[in-house]
Amino acid sequence: MLKEYLQASKAEIEAYLSTLLESPNREYARLYESMKYSLLMGGKRIRPIITKAVIEALGGTWESYKDVICAIELIHTYSLIHDDLPAMDNDDFRRGKPTNHRVYGDGMAVLAGDGLLTYAFELVSNHSSLRPDQVVSIIRSLAKGAGPSGMVGGQSFDLESEGKCLPLEELVVLHKGKTGALFSTAVEIGLIVMDANSHIATSYLQYADYLGLLFQITDDILDVVGTQEELGKTPGSDERQHKATYVSILGLEEARARASEVASKAKAELEASNQYSPVLEGLIQYLMDRTQ
Amino acid sequence: MLKEYLQASKAEIEAYLSTLLESPNREYARLYESMKYSLLMGGKRIRPIITKAVIEALGGTWESYKDVICAIELIHTYSLIHDDLPAMDNDDFRRGKPTNHRVYGDGMAVLAGDGLLTYAFELVSNHSSLRPDQVVSIIRSLAKGAGPSGMVGGQSFDLESEGKCLPLEELVVLHKGKTGALFSTAVEIGLIVMDANSHIATSYLQYADYLGLLFQITDDILDVVGTQEELGKTPGSDERQHKATYVSILGLEEARARASEVASKAKAELEASNQYSPVLEGLIQYLMDRTQ
Repeated sequence: MLKEYLQASKAEIEAYLSTLLESPNREYARLYESMKYSLLMGGKRIRPIITKAVIEALGGTWESYKDVICAIELIHTYSLIHDDLPAMDNDDFRRGKPTNHRVYGDGMAVLAGDGLLTYAFELVSNHSSLRPDQVVSIIRSLAKGAGPSGMVGGQSFDLESEGKCLPLEELVVLHKGKTGALFSTAVEIGLIVMDANSHIATSYLQYADYLGLLFQITDDILDVVGTQEELGKTPGSDERQHKATYVSILGLEEARARASEVASKAKAELEASNQYSPVLEGLIQYLMDRTQ
Repeated sequence: MLKEYLQASKAEIEAYLSTLLESPNREYARLYESMKYSLLMGGKRIRPIITKAVIEALGGTWESYKDVICAIELIHTYSLIHDDLPAMDNDDFRRGKPTNHRVYGDGMAVLAGDGLLTYAFELVSNHSSLRPDQVVSIIRSLAKGAGPSGMVGGQSFDLESEGKCLPLEELVVLHKGKTGALFSTAVEIGLIVMDANSHIATSYLQYADYLGLLFQITDDILDVVGTQEELGKTPGSDERQHKATYVSILGLEEARARASEVASKAKAELEASNQYSPVLEGLIQYLMDRTQ
């Protein structure tokens, strides 16, 4: 049931994404090609699916808000392109395919990321059926979640921490920025679109925090137990890069126990909201069981 | 007179910029330091000065709109950081000081640029005295001017064209994106803030086009005739990098003649607007006479 929902949502999101980013002239064609290459490379599309699920839980539809739902995926894609650069993680493969800079060169990959990030804000600013104050709130949420006090901050701390042995509290700060901030934004955009009341908003945002943490813990576990085929990249990269992870700090079993605990807390927040959503609940188990 | 205005405006802008970007925690401190390093490195601050001058010409004040005026400088600074990267122009010095990646490393420089770009949108989205529809319009203008159909597009075409002999029409496309788009945005933000009527808006935007073109032609001339001390970087870098420029295509004398012609057209547009501004007119001559 959830599996079908995720597949159908992913297909809708990718169909919409493929309509974006037509070059306005032939001179910029290669830039647009490089942006599309990474944007349409696949992936779970988990962030826009979360936004979509929140909107649907509160009575809205995908059709009315697809641009706003997909903006976060443009931002996520940009972050992956820059993260893979030789100056950062220096990854050659992503989702089983050569990374952007391996195909288009390092300079074009920098620009493809810059272009996707900037275009995300253009896309949201063009939305015409939301009230302007909602559009402003969505942009503020995206910028805070993706910016220096959010995702970029987390990435910078990650870069600074390479090869260092981090205490658990610092790892939590790192991932709150690197992964958690954009998960919160994914939920918050849905809440803004649907003018959710503050009771629902508080619970849903707590849920988002736990979901982001769960995503990161299971990501760290997968890097140890996943296979190359499932991951689309070489497993064990965290260890090779001497990255602090939940597994390296807590050990595999304790990391798994922590994941279960966080999953329970996420579920409890959903229940506390009195706004039940089978999809949002299903996403918790989905992250627990994921193999990629 | 203009000189004093430019100096005073630059001082006001830099005083305001220096109040931005305090790190929310010690983990992100190095990122914030690297962003501030480039943001406070000096420069002419020509883009925010243009926005400020447009707002003042139409009866507004710097005090009321300084965040919106300065957002474009954050975007300009990000573009310089990424442009200087080894993956792009590979410049070691900017304004007489080591470039961001020379001080903080390539990875942090990528993130500092990403952070400044994203924060620019956060800054504008936080503005509380403009109407929400004006904030949305400003964000749209910034995103279009800075994004893949604007500045990033021009940069990508520049990257693609390195070492190639471009015809003049293509060089015009390149610079319309790389420099012109953000000059247009600088003017447009002022027009949006002041709810300018369409007659003024049309003339002012034409003026912006000519001013951007004038800036680029004089930039190319300076790269040939400027001194290292004046430029804060090694002159002749365009020729070393085999870049097509107005000077390489037209020759120095013809490039100078073209600059004069464009300056006259810019002045004519200002006159046609019936909204005279000694500062905006003075900026034309300032660009003609500049030595840095």
